[in-house]
Order: sequence, then C-alpha cells, then structure tokens
Amino acid sequence: MSSPVLIVGSVAIDDVRTPAGERENCLGGAAVYSAVAASFFTGVNLVGVVGSDFPGEYVAFLGERGINLDGLQRAQGQTFRWAGYYEAEDLNQAHSLETRLNVFADFRPDLPESYRDDEFIFLACIDPELQLQVLGQVRSPRLAVCDTRDFWIVGKRDALVEVLKKSDVVIINDGEARLLCETNNNVQAARRILELGPRFVIIKKGEHGAMLFSREAVFAAPSFPLAEVVDPTGAGDTFAGAFTGYLAGSGEISFENMKRAVAWGTVAASFAIQDFSLERMKTLAFEDMRTRYAGLKAIAAFE
Amino acid sequence: MSSPVLIVGSVAIDDVRTPAGERENCLGGAAVYSAVAASFFTGVNLVGVVGSDFPGEYVAFLGERGINLDGLQRAQGQTFRWAGYYEAEDLNQAHSLETRLNVFADFRPDLPESYRDDEFIFLACIDPELQLQVLGQVRSPRLAVCDTRDFWIVGKRDALVEVLKKSDVVIINDGEARLLCETNNNVQAARRILELGPRFVIIKKGEHGAMLFSREAVFAAPSFPLAEVVDPTGAGDTFAGAFTGYLAGSGEISFENMKRAVAWGTVAASFAIQDFSLERMKTLAFEDMRTRYAGLKAIAAFE
Repeated sequence: MSSPVLIVGSVAIDDVRTPAGERENCLGGAAVYSAVAASFFTGVNLVGVVGSDFPGEYVAFLGERGINLDGLQRAQGQTFRWAGYYEAEDLNQAHSLETRLNVFADFRPDLPESYRDDEFIFLACIDPELQLQVLGQVRSPRLAVCDTRDFWIVGKRDALVEVLKKSDVVIINDGEARLLCETNNNVQAARRILELGPRFVIIKKGEHGAMLFSREAVFAAPSFPLAEVVDPTGAGDTFAGAFTGYLAGSGEISFENMKRAVAWGTVAASFAIQDFSLERMKTLAFEDMRTRYAGLKAIAAFE
Repeated sequence: MSSPVLIVGSVAIDDVRTPAGERENCLGGAAVYSAVAASFFTGVNLVGVVGSDFPGEYVAFLGERGINLDGLQRAQGQTFRWAGYYEAEDLNQAHSLETRLNVFADFRPDLPESYRDDEFIFLACIDPELQLQVLGQVRSPRLAVCDTRDFWIVGKRDALVEVLKKSDVVIINDGEARLLCETNNNVQAARRILELGPRFVIIKKGEHGAMLFSREAVFAAPSFPLAEVVDPTGAGDTFAGAFTGYLAGSGEISFENMKRAVAWGTVAASFAIQDFSLERMKTLAFEDMRTRYAGLKAIAAFE
C-alpha cells in the first residue's frame, strides 16, 4: 500500500564548479534532491522555505514531479544559497566557497495539518533541533529516516543524539560516522549507532557504495560504476530520497525490502551525478531506473 | 579438471606493528601468502628464494600445506626482510621502516622442468623483468595473472607494460591503478589497462572490496565486513592466490567463474587479516571459508 513521504530540509540555489564545468543559480538543496528522487516512487509532501527570489520555473518543476508544496513556506528575503566546488582528485569531497542561510536562518518547520498523519518521514540534513520539531508534529510515524552532517555532529551533538534515538533509520556517510563514533571501522561505527536506538544504519561510501546494518544483518551495495561523474552535488540526498520513497511506495519495512531500497537509492544517485543540479532527473524515465537497477543487480551477483 | 598453479614472488621474514600489537621474525612474502591461499583450492608450485637463515619450521608449514618447494632456491646469506607498520587511521596503507632484499637481490627465477607445463600462473609483485623471465619459461600458459606495485609502475614502466600485455588478468589496487593510468576513476583505469591487452582487470579497494572488469562486463564484490583487523599484511597476495588457485582448481575460465574466484579471494583475505602473519591461515579449515563465502553472498545479494 503506497504512502506518501514527508520530507523536510533545505531548498537552495547553488553555484557549482566541478572538473566537468560550472553552473550558476541552479536548483539545489537536500529537500529538493531527495523529494525529486522520492517522487519516482510515491507522493511527496515537502517542508521547507524559499525567499522571494526563488524562480517560478523551479517551483513549476517540483509541481510537475507531483510534489506537494503546501508545506513550502515563502518568506521575505533571499533563498538559501550555497557555492562550492569539487576537485578531480576527490569528487566525494565538496569544498564550500560560500553558504548564505538567508531565509533558512529563521526557518521553523510548521507542518500543514494534511501532512501530520504521514507515516514515512525523511529528515534531511538540517539543525537537529528542527528535526526534533518535525518529529514532534507527526502523529504516528512508521519509519523516520534521518540524515546529518559533520557540522551538527560537532556543534549540536546532544540534540543530534536525540534525533538518532527517535529515528528508525540513520543515514550517514563514512567520514561522518568516523566523527560521530570515533572509529575508522564501519562495522564498529554502525554498532555504536544501533546501540543508540535506531533499527537500521546506512553508511554511505560515495563511489564505494553503501552498507546497510541492522542488529542481525549486513548488506553491502556497490555504487553503479560510471566512467564520468559530472556533478556529485545532491548524490546523498538523492540516495536517501529514493530509499525512503521506495519504502513508502511499497509499504514494506523489512531488511529484504530495505536492501532493495538501498539499491534504488544507489541507482537514483548514479543518475543524479551524471549532470549538473537536477538536470538529469528532469528527463529521467522510471524505465531508465529499472534498467539500471537490473544492471546493478548483475554487477553485484555471484553464485 | 584441477590444475596446479605456479606462483613466483617473494618469500620473506617480516617485523610488523599494527594497532593490535607487533610481531618479529614472522613468515611473510607475497609468494608465501598467495601460495598458502591457493593451496586451499589446488596444488601449488612455488618459485622463490630464501637465505640460509630461513627457519625450518616455515619450510615445514609450507610443506604441510602441500606446496611444492622444488622451485624454492636456497642461497647463501639472509632471507628478504621487511619491517613496517600500520596506523589505526588507515589500515589500508603499509608504512615501510626497512626493506632488505638480501638474497632476493640476486634472484633469477629458474623453473624446475616439472613446472614448465603449468597452465595457471600467478606472478606476484616482483621486478617486471623477472615476471617476463618466468613467462618465457612456461610452455603453454592458459591463464597468467599478474600483480604489481607503485615501485615498479614508477621505476620500470616499460617492462611492466610488457607484463600487462602478456597477462590474462591484471590485479592492481586502486592507488596503483591511479598511478598507472593517471585517472581517479576506476572504470576509466580498468578500460585503459584492458586496452593494453589483458582480458580481465581486477581493481582491489581494500575494505571497499574489489571490482572485476572485462571488456563487456563488471562485477563488484564487497569486502567481508570485520569489526577488527589485526594485521593487513598479505591481504592482497592472499586474495590473488585464492583467486588464481580457485580458477586452477575448477579449470573454468569464464566471467561467471571469475566472479566466484573474486569472492573466494575476498573470503581468504578476510581470514588472513584476522591475525598476524599467516597465523589464522594455519588453523583455517576449508569449511570455515565455505561458511564465510555463503555469508558474503548473502551480504551482496538483493532481489
């Protein structure tokens, strides 16, 4: 039974430079990347904020993807802006040139009444205190998935640990896991996070794929091998959005189905990074994803 | 139909320090690690050299594993010695403290007549000119597998390229692939190596597993997740030895069977690193490997 997924996070305008080129004023933000990815699998209820400068064409694109924008606040001022670059030596590492919070600085999530019964929640990477506010507004979550980053691990550790305790799935990359758990070993890191309360932990490893841990089992998915990456921005958010969207769409919360969700997240992310911003996702057909999913399965299978 | 595997490489005495402890005067060397791993799958014909100091108990251990030592030369002087350490921050990276070639400096492979019809060859990491000498002495190789390292990529590139051209399978780690191919992208690196002539390329990625490439297909195996690594020394050699040994033992050279060989290599390496030197391999039963192989399959499988 298909349920919608509630997604809260940043909506941004980005300037990005990569070895493949550069783009200015392009659509970005964790909530946008994850919502677009989730929209391939189920309905999406978005929560975020934009300024008065946010282009109408970006709103139109999100609407075309069937994303419900009732929870998208419009505030006076400028939209959240990020400028950064990637170097050829390490495409996994984003270098920030400028981060201007703008209207995002005063963002307080206030869920529309129609969102409060949502059961599948993706808390994209925002201040953990805001993540807790969102969790406090949903009545009966079945699956809360959270993301975070180094900035909050260092700056708001206590609030973050509260979020991790209340989440069912924690998605984190390997560098962040190291910072949070003070170990280089992903198995140890996953165990320590599971001890805090969540039932599942996903450690993302960029080009090396992703690992899913429960207390009883482990799953390792490779990334989809690409000879060229154009723009890594939003890969992790796309992964998480497709992951949560697939689970909400299928309605089944089991380790076996989570493995599929990780694979769909991997596939979605592999498309996202093949062009700047959300350009590739604009023209992506579900059939393209299905073909690549079969390809990923073949790449990982052995007898 | 089971064939033996011919293995040429270093036989060493190591001093090793890792975050888990330290050991002096322990058995090591690429030919030793790979021969022991291969011996779980088929007969092994070893080619190498030791000095007059090489302990009889190490010879006895190799003999107990059924490894044919007719090609192990005994020279006057000291055995090849390596001393090094690993730091907790990056167990993939060995730091050398001392490398004394000793009798290995004058090593010239001279295959016993009984080895010259061997069809499965593993050229462990030695001077590419010596690797070429070995290839020149075998009459009808069916599968030549070679390994190399940064030292030879930089220092003897032309000879190394000759080895790559004449090999069927090139096994290389990701850092070495980057150095050899001048790209960070593993797909691009594999393509460039395939263009030189080999039919298969394996890029090892340490804790992130290994990728197998042919001109038509890709396979990605995760590593076996371990909460503790005791001593990473010899992991790559163990992988390569089990890989080649499995292929020689099964006699089938196909992409599907190579996938299994990569998985067996992964499993063997995961045991090797759970203790110092070859300690874990001494007590390892094939049944332990079989159980872990099934575990690796479960970790990688999704529907």
